[in-house]
Parts: sequence; C-alpha cells; structure tokens
Amino acid sequence: MIEFAEVPPLDGRAGAAARRRHDLLTKPRGALGRLEDLSVWVASCQGDCPPTQFTRARVVVFAGDHGVARAGVSAYPPEVTAQMVTNIEAGGDAINILAEAAGATVRVVDMAVDRDESTTDATAAHPADATMAYKVRRSSGNIATEDAMHLDEAIAAIEAGRRIADDEVDAGADLLIVGDMGIGNTTVATALIAALIGTEPVAAVGRGTGIDDAAWSRKTAAVRDALYRSRDRRDDPVALLAACGGADLAAMAGFCAQSAVRRTPLLLDGVVVTAAALVADRMAPGARSWWRAGHRSPEPAHTLALAELGLEPIIDLGLRLGEGTGAAVALPILRAAVSLLASMATFTEAGVSQRLGPDRS
Amino acid sequence: MIEFAEVPPLDGRAGAAARRRHDLLTKPRGALGRLEDLSVWVASCQGDCPPTQFTRARVVVFAGDHGVARAGVSAYPPEVTAQMVTNIEAGGDAINILAEAAGATVRVVDMAVDRDESTTDATAAHPADATMAYKVRRSSGNIATEDAMHLDEAIAAIEAGRRIADDEVDAGADLLIVGDMGIGNTTVATALIAALIGTEPVAAVGRGTGIDDAAWSRKTAAVRDALYRSRDRRDDPVALLAACGGADLAAMAGFCAQSAVRRTPLLLDGVVVTAAALVADRMAPGARSWWRAGHRSPEPAHTLALAELGLEPIIDLGLRLGEGTGAAVALPILRAAVSLLASMATFTEAGVSQRLGPDRS
Repeated sequence: MIEFAEVPPLDGRAGAAARRRHDLLTKPRGALGRLEDLSVWVASCQGDCPPTQFTRARVVVFAGDHGVARAGVSAYPPEVTAQMVTNIEAGGDAINILAEAAGATVRVVDMAVDRDESTTDATAAHPADATMAYKVRRSSGNIATEDAMHLDEAIAAIEAGRRIADDEVDAGADLLIVGDMGIGNTTVATALIAALIGTEPVAAVGRGTGIDDAAWSRKTAAVRDALYRSRDRRDDPVALLAACGGADLAAMAGFCAQSAVRRTPLLLDGVVVTAAALVADRMAPGARSWWRAGHRSPEPAHTLALAELGLEPIIDLGLRLGEGTGAAVALPILRAAVSLLASMATFTEAGVSQRLGPDRS
Repeated sequence: MIEFAEVPPLDGRAGAAARRRHDLLTKPRGALGRLEDLSVWVASCQGDCPPTQFTRARVVVFAGDHGVARAGVSAYPPEVTAQMVTNIEAGGDAINILAEAAGATVRVVDMAVDRDESTTDATAAHPADATMAYKVRRSSGNIATEDAMHLDEAIAAIEAGRRIADDEVDAGADLLIVGDMGIGNTTVATALIAALIGTEPVAAVGRGTGIDDAAWSRKTAAVRDALYRSRDRRDDPVALLAACGGADLAAMAGFCAQSAVRRTPLLLDGVVVTAAALVADRMAPGARSWWRAGHRSPEPAHTLALAELGLEPIIDLGLRLGEGTGAAVALPILRAAVSLLASMATFTEAGVSQRLGPDRS
C-alpha cells in the first residue's frame, strides 16, 4: 500500500492578515474581486503576508499512452503521444511557449508512453533518460476490456509522482502546475471522474481534441464498460487507478497529493489533471485546499470534477489542449494578484480618503 | 463639429493566414479556443502573420470629477479623484502594479478633476503640467440637473482624446489600454449606455464601488433624470456627451475612435471605458473592430454595452475598480496568444502525425 503524510492546513493567520491588508489598500473594499481571493490563498499557502512573488514556477507534464486509444476514441493516432513528448523536449509545444510567457519552466515525464526506448535515446536531442527515469510500462491497458495496469504498477506510478513532487519542491519550486499528454487520456479521465462522483457516462463524456459523433459514441461505450468493470473498486483510490486509470494519471495523483503535503501551491489544468486531483484528494484528504483551478475546459467531466472539488476556475477560454496550458495561461493572473497585495499603496501611505461614514456595503 | 477620418478595415488577408497557420501548429484544430481568435485579431490589426509581440503597450487613464457625485451616488467622497490621480502619478495604485506586471506603462490625464492646480503643482512629485495639459474644466456638471458641459467643451475634450491617441501612436504604442478614474463616473457611464441602447435605468444601474440600497436608489434616480434631460440628443454623440457625459468620458471616446483610425489595437476596460467606446463607435463607425474587451465587470450596464458592441470579455473575475485594471489583467493573455501563433512548432517541423483520416470535427 501507499500512504501520504497528513496534509497540513493553510495558515489561517496569514490569510486573515491578507484580508485585513486588502482593506487598507487604495481601492474600494473587494473591488479587485477574485484577485483578492487568489492573493489571500497564496498568503495562506506561504504562511506570510504580504506574499512573495513566485521565483520558481514549474510545470510538470506527465505523459502516457492508453490502450483505449486503439478503440477509436480519439481524433489522433496513438503514436502522437511519443511525438509530442519529443516536441515538448524540443521546446516547440504550446506548453513551452505559454510557460515561458508566464515565467515558468517545463519538465516532461514519460510514465507509460508506447515507444521504443532504445531508438528514442539515440535520436532525442534532449536527455530522454531523465524523461524516462520513472517509466512504469509501455502504454496502460484498454480500460474498456482490461485493467489499466497491475496494482503494484499503480503503486509504483503514484510513488513516482510523489518523488517527483519531492524533487521539485526540494529544488526550490514555489508554484507547481500539472500537465498531461496522452492520446486517449480524456476517456480515462472521464471514467475516473464518473466512477468517483457517480455520474452517468452520457453526462460526462466530451469531444476531447475534436471527435465526431461516432467516436463520441465509442468513447461513451468505453467509459461505460470501464465503469462496469471497476464497479467494486470505487472506494479504493489506488485500485481504481489500476482498474480504469493509467500510469500517467496515477503519477499525477501522487504529485498533486504530495505537493499539498509539502505545502506547495499548485494550479490544476484540464479534465485529465483534475481527474487525477480528485483521486489525490481521496488519498490525501484536504489536499484540495492547496490547489486552485487554472481554467475550465469544454469537457463536461471537467466541470463536474471542479464542482466536486469546490474549485472555481480562473479563466474560461475554451481551451481543450491539456499539457498544463490552461494553468499556464492563468499563472500571470495569479502573479498579478500577488503583486497587488505586495506592492499597492495603503490609504495612509497615499493620503487618500476612505469611505463615507460607516461601511455601507 | 468634430469628425474622424474613416476607420480602416482590419487586414482580412493576414487574418486568414493566421487561421491557416493555426491549423499547422502541433495541436488539435481549435484546441487553443479563444486564444486562437485573439491571435488572429492581432495579426489582422498588424496586417502580418505571424504577429509580433507588443513592445510598447500603454495604459492611458482619463480622470475627471462629476457633479453627480455630490448627489450621494458613490461610496467615496469626490476629493478621492484628485488623491487617486496623485497615487497613480506616484506609482502606488492598482493600475501601476498591474501594468508593470503586464509589461505596460501608465499615463494619467486630468480632464476635469476638481482640484486647485496651483497647489497641486507645488506638492506633486510628478509633472502635473503634463497631466493637466488637456484639462477642460474643474468637474463636469451634475447630469441629473444640468448638462455635464458646454458643447464646445465636449468638442475640446474629444479633440484632446484624439490628440493623445495620436501622440501615443506616434511615440510607438502598439497596444493601447484605456482606463478611468473619477468618483461618480459609473453613474455617468450608465446614463450614456442607457441612452444609447434604450435601456430602463433599473436594468442598467449597478453597485459601482460598493454602494448600499439607498445610494443605489439615488443613483438610479440620477440616471433617470439624466435620460429625461437628454432625450432629444440621443442621436448626436457629441451633444449626448455634453448632456450626460463628462470631459473624461468625452476624451476617452475621442481616444478610442482615433486609435482605430490609426490602426492600433486597443483593450477596453470596465463600464466607464465601454460607455465611452459605445459613443466612439457612433462617431467613428467600425472602430469597434479594433477593440477587444479586457474583462467583464459586475455592472449590469457593462454587460449591456459589451453585447451592443458584440465583444466577449477575455476575463471575468468580478473586478469593479476601473482604471484600466481589468484590461491590464487580460493583457498577458493577449500576449500569450501572440506568442503561441508566433513561436509554436508546426506538425512538419516537429515530425508529429496529423489527424486520423479526413477532418471529422
């Protein structure tokens, strides 16, 4: 089995100080809306008010293939997963561009990509050894017909995610973003979410990267079959990951849980990451308080999972790419919230009059 | 009278090239959602694909007092306007912090602040002369009972906004943001919007910076009185600005119109700026195509005006501060959109497989 240390609570004292400080800044009370909430959250995570700007924001993309992709649930062939891992390593992918724009760096981890490691090593321009150090298997099983992996593989993958979180925090990461890459992974994520919150597949299955009606029907059937196969394992997060998850999602879950144990704020991304987070919050109760939702994707299961976690996304721009892109686009907004609380003048400093009479709002 | 040169159309050829380029990038078609639309818009404004990143983004905050503030429509006393102009000049205001975070600079223009210029000059740490170079008057009139200003003052204020836009574009600005500062200005903005789109005051009036029910009733009555007084001037944008606008809003309108004439993309902010933009689009038809909406505020009139202009906001975070803050928070998202289109790898460059079979989406 695998167990996480108790998740520490946020620092309520620092949060209260942040709320008080906001009321002293040269603006009407509450006028910065959700930026105020976000800055209070960062102060509560850091245990200090005003909070300090993030100096080492880090995106970790967990990649893996899924046997269910061969069931025609995606608009793209499975070999795209390996190609996109190489694209991220080469710096030309969307997440590379968005992370750089947001002042973050990117690491990609191959947990279960279906590629030949010997040939990959020879042709990669970047250190594939590091990318594959935690690899559990080549592709996870087709969850419609078989378990995604053995229980010991699920444990190894969760453990890998935990170690990667430890590595990143030990290296100084002060803000983490989780990303995903894997053809077929929205099918797996949808099955996990539906299993955990008891939703009918038709209410949860979306269009992924852009599938047609026939593919949507195949995807829905795959989710339904996975739910049936795993019906006895819904109360055991690790067994559920083995039954209808994948090594990449298991690693994400371990990463999300451990980042909370290590008191490090984390931005969730789309439906795949949020599915893993839902599992993580079961493995490490209270972990959700260390997370915020970067964005809302058009996937119905994403909205269901966010509601279950009680998280309201920062942006809603129709992104459906994964990789951490939604969270990376939201990161500058989180940074702006921190800067406001840290740097704005107070009424007293600026010699600005406060509200008329007693507070009337 | 005042007339604007014809607004040039966006470059449809560059926009089409941007759409085509997006389909070559290593992501599912359309997967970057509204970021794709924003980058296509920037390419269409710049007349080039891929677009280039903004190198001189500029926020111009137009400040003015409003006689209606003395009718108890705001939670703050009128003297706050002058104090906040000084706060912006000193760099401690929310817009200063957010602009710096977004890589933009800030200019504040006193169009009608109710302050004693001789004492201001002596105490200001920053060049008040530049701030007041275009000043039209000390406070605009109380629109509930009198015109905001004479027609020739309205023309002078619009002309000032036009010259400021010319100055900024001539100085190299490649992205403009409009901001507002003035106690009572959401009352004036709401009156303008209601006059232009024929809305009942109760459906348009909001809580501004945080007023209680009694102040909301006074604000609604003021808007209703202003609408009645100006009922014969709704088809004449300049006369309407004189009747129930203000010198600051008139200058914003001139600025928004001229930025379009000068082919410069512009981000709108909250209800005050959007009211001025609505007038600007009447003075310079087609100007709206050069604008995008930075954010949606909780003010009902803001949503009405955005719908009238056909603009969908980039963010929706409950900001109700004005000053250009909503647009400044959105700017990094616009920058991210530009970076994606300019820097992502294509399928061919990255050796990534494209969709299965014919396009099925």
